[in-house]
Amino acid sequence: MTTDPLSSTFAALADPTRRAILARLAAGPATVKELSAPFAMSGPAVSKHLRVLERAGLIVRGREAQWRPCTLEAAPLKEVAAWAENYRRFWDANYERLDDYLQHLKEREKNHDHGK
Amino acid sequence: MTTDPLSSTFAALADPTRRAILARLAAGPATVKELSAPFAMSGPAVSKHLRVLERAGLIVRGREAQWRPCTLEAAPLKEVAAWAENYRRFWDANYERLDDYLQHLKEREKNHDHGK
Repeated sequence: MTTDPLSSTFAALADPTRRAILARLAAGPATVKELSAPFAMSGPAVSKHLRVLERAGLIVRGREAQWRPCTLEAAPLKEVAAWAENYRRFWDANYERLDDYLQHLKEREKNHDHGK
Repeated sequence: MTTDPLSSTFAALADPTRRAILARLAAGPATVKELSAPFAMSGPAVSKHLRVLERAGLIVRGREAQWRPCTLEAAPLKEVAAWAENYRRFWDANYERLDDYLQHLKEREKNHDHGK
């Protein structure tokens, strides 16, 4: 089964530990050891989460065999933000008022044209 | 196992059919029958997706036994957008330039103070 990129991203984000790992990496690259400490998790448990994040393209890992520092890759998060923004008019009252105002302008314009 | 709201939302969004259902509902409420048609899916298959969306608070369903129209609930998507926006500085070059500029202003201010 192939998964589309956006579905992979959402699936990777559907876990509070993985989101916390991304938040930690926002402060700079970190090794598995550095990532394990604050989560009171074993190295293998953290590595499992890192594999999910890596497959989703949300992190990249260094090539140095022993350290392999993880770095945040935010490009998929841009897609998430853009996707969610499509629904802004359903939660943003200002946006709704702007919509109403544009509608009002359009109608005034139409009435004005008819009045000519 | 209890799941935090944001994880439930991300899990519900990790499926292209469920995202297509939300896109359809952005145009207005729809019944299961109306939602099944464009997806070439059986009613029960669509109903299963609707249950996931309903549990995540992304849709609400009407009370009328036979029709139970589905309506989009965008509040959880606002949380998704807000969460992703935390990472904007990692993908937005303008934001980065603004950061650099503010840093520059701060340093100029500091040098100015020291020069007094």
